[in-house]
Amino acid sequence: MTDQPILVNGTWQAAENPTGSFQATNPATKEPLPHSYPVSSWDDLQAMLDAAQEAVIALRQTPRSAIADFLEKYADAIEARQDALVEAANLETGLPAGTRLPGELGRTTNQLRQAGQAVRSGTWLTATIDTATNIRAMYGPLDGPVIVFGPNNFPLAFNGVSGGDMVAAIAAGNPVIAKGHPSHPRTTQLLAEAALEAIEATDVPQAMVQLFYHTSNENGTKLVAHPITGATGFTGSRTGGMALKAAADAAGKPIYLEMSSVNPIVILPGTLDERSDDMAQELFASCTLGSGQFCTNPGLVLMLDTPQTAAFIKQVESLFEGSDPGLLLNEGIIGSLKQGIQTWEQNGATRVTGGQPLQAGGYRFQNTLYTVDGATFLQHPEPLQAEAFGAASLIVLASDADQLIDCLNILEGNLTGCIYSATSDADESLYADVAAALRPKVGRLLNDKMPTGVAVSPAMMHGGPYPATGHPGFTSVGIPASIHRFAMWQSYDNIRPHRLPPELKDKNPTGTMWRFIDKTWSQADVS
Amino acid sequence: MTDQPILVNGTWQAAENPTGSFQATNPATKEPLPHSYPVSSWDDLQAMLDAAQEAVIALRQTPRSAIADFLEKYADAIEARQDALVEAANLETGLPAGTRLPGELGRTTNQLRQAGQAVRSGTWLTATIDTATNIRAMYGPLDGPVIVFGPNNFPLAFNGVSGGDMVAAIAAGNPVIAKGHPSHPRTTQLLAEAALEAIEATDVPQAMVQLFYHTSNENGTKLVAHPITGATGFTGSRTGGMALKAAADAAGKPIYLEMSSVNPIVILPGTLDERSDDMAQELFASCTLGSGQFCTNPGLVLMLDTPQTAAFIKQVESLFEGSDPGLLLNEGIIGSLKQGIQTWEQNGATRVTGGQPLQAGGYRFQNTLYTVDGATFLQHPEPLQAEAFGAASLIVLASDADQLIDCLNILEGNLTGCIYSATSDADESLYADVAAALRPKVGRLLNDKMPTGVAVSPAMMHGGPYPATGHPGFTSVGIPASIHRFAMWQSYDNIRPHRLPPELKDKNPTGTMWRFIDKTWSQADVS
Repeated sequence: MTDQPILVNGTWQAAENPTGSFQATNPATKEPLPHSYPVSSWDDLQAMLDAAQEAVIALRQTPRSAIADFLEKYADAIEARQDALVEAANLETGLPAGTRLPGELGRTTNQLRQAGQAVRSGTWLTATIDTATNIRAMYGPLDGPVIVFGPNNFPLAFNGVSGGDMVAAIAAGNPVIAKGHPSHPRTTQLLAEAALEAIEATDVPQAMVQLFYHTSNENGTKLVAHPITGATGFTGSRTGGMALKAAADAAGKPIYLEMSSVNPIVILPGTLDERSDDMAQELFASCTLGSGQFCTNPGLVLMLDTPQTAAFIKQVESLFEGSDPGLLLNEGIIGSLKQGIQTWEQNGATRVTGGQPLQAGGYRFQNTLYTVDGATFLQHPEPLQAEAFGAASLIVLASDADQLIDCLNILEGNLTGCIYSATSDADESLYADVAAALRPKVGRLLNDKMPTGVAVSPAMMHGGPYPATGHPGFTSVGIPASIHRFAMWQSYDNIRPHRLPPELKDKNPTGTMWRFIDKTWSQADVS
Repeated sequence: MTDQPILVNGTWQAAENPTGSFQATNPATKEPLPHSYPVSSWDDLQAMLDAAQEAVIALRQTPRSAIADFLEKYADAIEARQDALVEAANLETGLPAGTRLPGELGRTTNQLRQAGQAVRSGTWLTATIDTATNIRAMYGPLDGPVIVFGPNNFPLAFNGVSGGDMVAAIAAGNPVIAKGHPSHPRTTQLLAEAALEAIEATDVPQAMVQLFYHTSNENGTKLVAHPITGATGFTGSRTGGMALKAAADAAGKPIYLEMSSVNPIVILPGTLDERSDDMAQELFASCTLGSGQFCTNPGLVLMLDTPQTAAFIKQVESLFEGSDPGLLLNEGIIGSLKQGIQTWEQNGATRVTGGQPLQAGGYRFQNTLYTVDGATFLQHPEPLQAEAFGAASLIVLASDADQLIDCLNILEGNLTGCIYSATSDADESLYADVAAALRPKVGRLLNDKMPTGVAVSPAMMHGGPYPATGHPGFTSVGIPASIHRFAMWQSYDNIRPHRLPPELKDKNPTGTMWRFIDKTWSQADVS
């Protein structure tokens, strides 16, 4: 069997001296899927870096409209392949082909089009003009390509070759070298075919997007630290992320990581007095959505230890037990679920339900619920916050409000934090203390809503303090903020007017772009 | 002699178990100055971290106006101490008491007041409202204090206790733990006395600003990586910065560094045809400003190797030789100048003038100029870009335009890059190539202007790609951008209206704050 090609500088070509090959597995059958893909040697990565370096130079002369054209044509080309993409992604990930994958595809094309619109509007550039000093500034591209490592759990909307990081990097004016996740290479290949079609239909460089599927850890760290590299976006495990971060940091290369998050849910007592049934249903639905394989999955629930809470846990238990566990992405998820749950047990958590893999019907694991008392959680905060990626959650039972706050104060950084409370003002005083403690620990704070929906909104923060990500100031979802990660802030001091980029000239180049002129946001020309 | 106290939690107190003590030296006399200061043990730093952690919590309930009050009162309190500050700084640094130090003091108070105004206006928060999803976001403070390490060369405007990093960190709502530079402890102490007066006069926490003067390298790295720490700002040497960066990175703590920069100046041939005399004068003035001890000092000049250039170098040589070398900050600068120049010589550079320390009149070093041909520069780009901090510059003589561009393409990241050209269009074609190559290497690009002025402007980029700083997206000077370094991006998703922070409620809290509502910048209420 010959390996499938990789995408280098606008051409599908055989890998150079691959160090191995791999096939994806159908999680529903545990059988290998037909296509075989190369494990790339450094030769492939060097070829991509060299082509990307040329693309960086070419992009300095490429009009912004060409980048917007590319993003929009890419969205069209993905839609034209919808059926094939959904079929491939379903076979490789087990995610449902009915609504989930078409929905994720719509999110993917929506992101591409929002980014295209942002490039056309130019407002993301934050063009800043100080007429008193004649200093002007705006965001510009990096001095090198962006490397994007995609995760296993969103094969379309976070894919290295089509997802949020890729879209943000391209919108900022950088070429992308994407590493597809080895769990879904065929899906990634189809997306890259769409990307290449869009490259060929527009005026962006051939190396605007390049693709490989797999390489050694050593090559991965070498890639993110390479002198040609501009920055890296990574979504995946904490172990993998930390290894790449160490290499990139040592070389002074920006790296944005989305690693792990247990997404604490605090349910205040008034909620249960009012709507215990609905609350149980809502928690269950969020915990099991996508078989629990969302980065915003509620892995940690914090409540006061009351009789009402005990009854609530019974309700959740019965919902967990009454629902068939969904398919998991791959065998690795089962191993890490087992390990995460074992860590909880070793540190004093008690099983309510679940805890074991299923033997039949592909890769599946029982819906799993554990509890632990607040004192034990405070004694072992680190292992009891370990992420058990999948439909597995730990409920912390605090003895009183003070202990609840203590538990919140020792939380690690998370993507999200939710607070449920009475619709009356019964919980209002406790809410204030809980929100004050939770706010600095999470990127997105929610009320009366589960975290598993992540809207592509300008106000989205899909990020948070370490170790959820590597930096609390950035989001990987949401435009324009996500674009700024892959951009450089650039001043123009006393530059002769005709030499300024169009966005910094006195005349507003679009007539509608927002610019920050003398500390006022304006769509006008400089007067 | 008893050591001077440190500032912990609003109280001047003796250091706990200091590991040593030190005195500053008067660079004009090479004699020690009277006061003695402690080298802090970890005990002091732990006490400051503990107090800062309390301050972080107190700041969640502190109105923004109190922070603005503090910044403005601090500016007043510095002005009230102007004479004492200028005298102390002059004795400790040798910087002229006539215009330089009063000018720097004015810059310091201006920064504080600009930050106070930014806090009052609230526009820096980038309050973002998406009414379709009811998701809202803005910048909030970090979950821990900011550690600021000040440099030796700007004892007021970049001092850890009063400079740009401190001001930005406070404006974002964080307490600061400052390390003064051991070259000017008395100046730092006087500033901290002013800060304490402002703390006491306003409603900010007692630990809003704390101060120590010196500690071991080991304690420094422990401090920036400590779980309580929020982030770090550092201005200083590349060696020191890299050690702190490694420790902070490994702990997932943001760190902003301003390390080293040679600030390339490209002089295109038409300039010399038109105004060789003026050009020589301008270069000389910038190279020797502050005895060459500006972070934006022009350490590298790139020109075409022509007879006009040879004549120009003669002019610069004569200006360098005709001017008395200024006082240097301390003995260390002489050592590193010697070493930097030796590195140039070892890699093929030729002395034009200078190169030796002076024996009399305090710490002084000859104004120094070297040249090297472009081919040699391309062979040894790293050592020939080594910063020789002081009035020492290296001129690269490129054989032709292609070699000039090659030299620019291998430049490391720098704070600034300047291009001088004919006022006619004689250099316009070469300008385009030079600017395209230089733009991605420097934070601030200039025309016909030396880089040594760094205005506190919203459009300032005082930063640049590694190794000038640790991240090309941030500036350490300029408001609002510098504030964002010490802030966290925070979403509020479906939060009940009365629980939102005032800046994200439907009603604009000031009536003038700019908010990004449904992708439009607006001062209006949400309708």
